Amino acid sequence: MQAVDIIAKKRDGRILSAEEIRHFIEHYTRDQIPDYQVAAWLMAVYLQGMNTDEVHALTSAMVESGEQLRIRDTLSPVVDKHSTGGVGDKVTLAVAPLVAACGVAVGKMSGRGLGHTGGTLDKLESVPGFRVELSQQEFLDTLQKHQLVLAGQSQELAPADGKLYALRDVTGTVGSLPLIASSIMSKKLAIGCSHLLLDVKFGSGALLKPVEQARELAQIMVAIGKQAGMHTVATLTSMAQPLGAAIGNALELAEAIAILRGEGPADVRELCYYEASELLVMTGKAPNMEEAHQQVMQVILRGEAVAKLAEVIAAQGGDGSMIERPEKLPAAPARLIVKAPRSGYIAAIEAEQMGRASMHLGAGRVRKGEPIDHRTGFVLQAKIGDYVHAGDALLEIHARTVAEAEAIQPAVLACYAWSEEPTQPLPLIFETVH
Amino acid sequence: MQAVDIIAKKRDGRILSAEEIRHFIEHYTRDQIPDYQVAAWLMAVYLQGMNTDEVHALTSAMVESGEQLRIRDTLSPVVDKHSTGGVGDKVTLAVAPLVAACGVAVGKMSGRGLGHTGGTLDKLESVPGFRVELSQQEFLDTLQKHQLVLAGQSQELAPADGKLYALRDVTGTVGSLPLIASSIMSKKLAIGCSHLLLDVKFGSGALLKPVEQARELAQIMVAIGKQAGMHTVATLTSMAQPLGAAIGNALELAEAIAILRGEGPADVRELCYYEASELLVMTGKAPNMEEAHQQVMQVILRGEAVAKLAEVIAAQGGDGSMIERPEKLPAAPARLIVKAPRSGYIAAIEAEQMGRASMHLGAGRVRKGEPIDHRTGFVLQAKIGDYVHAGDALLEIHARTVAEAEAIQPAVLACYAWSEEPTQPLPLIFETVH
Repeated sequence: MQAVDIIAKKRDGRILSAEEIRHFIEHYTRDQIPDYQVAAWLMAVYLQGMNTDEVHALTSAMVESGEQLRIRDTLSPVVDKHSTGGVGDKVTLAVAPLVAACGVAVGKMSGRGLGHTGGTLDKLESVPGFRVELSQQEFLDTLQKHQLVLAGQSQELAPADGKLYALRDVTGTVGSLPLIASSIMSKKLAIGCSHLLLDVKFGSGALLKPVEQARELAQIMVAIGKQAGMHTVATLTSMAQPLGAAIGNALELAEAIAILRGEGPADVRELCYYEASELLVMTGKAPNMEEAHQQVMQVILRGEAVAKLAEVIAAQGGDGSMIERPEKLPAAPARLIVKAPRSGYIAAIEAEQMGRASMHLGAGRVRKGEPIDHRTGFVLQAKIGDYVHAGDALLEIHARTVAEAEAIQPAVLACYAWSEEPTQPLPLIFETVH
Repeated sequence: MQAVDIIAKKRDGRILSAEEIRHFIEHYTRDQIPDYQVAAWLMAVYLQGMNTDEVHALTSAMVESGEQLRIRDTLSPVVDKHSTGGVGDKVTLAVAPLVAACGVAVGKMSGRGLGHTGGTLDKLESVPGFRVELSQQEFLDTLQKHQLVLAGQSQELAPADGKLYALRDVTGTVGSLPLIASSIMSKKLAIGCSHLLLDVKFGSGALLKPVEQARELAQIMVAIGKQAGMHTVATLTSMAQPLGAAIGNALELAEAIAILRGEGPADVRELCYYEASELLVMTGKAPNMEEAHQQVMQVILRGEAVAKLAEVIAAQGGDGSMIERPEKLPAAPARLIVKAPRSGYIAAIEAEQMGRASMHLGAGRVRKGEPIDHRTGFVLQAKIGDYVHAGDALLEIHARTVAEAEAIQPAVLACYAWSEEPTQPLPLIFETVH
């Protein structure tokens, strides 16, 4: 089997066999097929697509490229949760401790932020000392002991995905549904939880902007999960504007803590409670969404949700007291209130542009491996649909210096669109894919 | 300008600017863009195509990637001739000395055979001692002195093409019209003759099998040549069956010598006279095809055509007496006459399969750089349209051993299709593109 023949077959729009896909991925992982052949193949996949069987085969080949944790063999139910990423998306930070506090184990490996989107690991590392690089044994031990673990992606799991992703990033082949689906799902299957909730974002701040594409991605991923024996559900949620009020690492962690206390902005708070409830129903911990919601509210009211996050932060080397008292989290030295330049209803807040602006404040990175500033970002004071009077506070910039805060102000204001007429944001939770 | 943005633009089917193409090729030539990015770009070009402006810009960028000989600045007219390659295609070996003997200089750089197609360099190297690697000065000196030079492609001319071709070969991106056209034409423009005749093959033994594709390629190349101030004409000729009778290096050289003597198989002989005449008309050496044909016949009858080939072979270090007496050319030790397995009209001789069979006898190579055996190959005794009686000689196999000759016999016979009804081959010269 020659690599060039497999490339040519996909180039011509023909369907690759599972054997051909496995051969290609297996040999690439072992450095027996060079990057340039894989790059040509990735572009052919991007432009010619893959059918369901091919995506399943690709995902399996990536899972088999490395070790497999198969957590559900030792602990069940155990849940995983994944978001395709957006701006201000701190949902995992709240949902994971909520579910764990309700008595369902959560084993989560997360990624870092890149470009305009943030990453759960970066947000967690706002707490000094918190360790995200755990050995597989530490991961399992922490999970067993605390019903919760929040770690970085293990390099031993689905190593083919790591190699492929790095190559996609520099060859213009990131935004392909079969490649996105297999990338996400190979990591999830390699961890091997029993239940998986996928949050697939659409809208201006998401990787996939049209809802149709997000739905298609959700359907592919749910099918892959089910075929592998993982109970998988996906929610399609709007990223038409930043989620909640906070954008930036420590700021978002603080907002997640507020949600665990029953506070915080309504949109993101409701989404967190919804996703936590969905996981409780999926795992049979609650018989329906109403009772699940009650369980969630109980652990919030009893303080068990915040305590669970503090517990796991401490278990992984962080200062747990910062979770109990988030005012101790690192704070930016300079703050600047941006005032509304006009009166009117907010018609749009460009999430991707807001994410890029926060990146320029140091909250995100252009290239992998760059350091970030955990303290910087934005706190929105108004969202789509709100009426704002000229001169009212529109948002607060948290920056390293006043000069940097002032410099970013025009770019931030350019993210807003205004209307004389009342406007309505899209419902946040658009639909669920089972 | 980022390479990944240029890749993404072509991926999305958008038109690249001349500046973007130049940037990409220039930096690739200097190893400042890695192979894997270029591989993804090549696949995007393969699948999304290029418009005329893009192909012109790509060709120019490849010409500018290295030195430019610009022969026509020192000698004019000076002609170049190129075939897209096929099986039994020894036309250059005859046309170049014919035209030179008629008094029009021919400066030719050729390639080697790969896969089922042969290469002019390999055929010339059937003469021991013949040197194809000439310095640019040797190339020009030989041309000035003998009105003819037959050399290998200089690495200093259009080096981007060499890099790109090697990458296309292993990434399934060879068969793209914009990439083929720019590859061929960049080398021709870098040499810089005043007149160029392109022989674009179509049919089962050609790289591009449908005549429509061959016509499109011819049109693109003629447009590129004209825009660069090179008088360019293309002929579309059939490669539905092997050209002439001989397939294999020394065997084809011997057939070319026969043509220079006014002998040899009618099909390839007529094609050689036609192309030589076309070049005499193009350069104004003859006022029309009839008078051109008479000039060609005169140099044949006077022995000047054979003498010209012998002269240049000797000038480049080969044994010129072998041209005067081709029976001295290296000959295969084993010969086997293959008899017709049935009576009937020959309906097809699969050129590509015949080429592959000759490769297995040692006459061609699977990978670049492999040694070949100049002595081996086939001599056909009948062509499409001929009636053959069962047991008549169908072809002769020239091999290293009788065992190898016998082993290839079934594959050779499988190339033939038979008919009870009279059959007609396609006309060899299909049309001319000006």
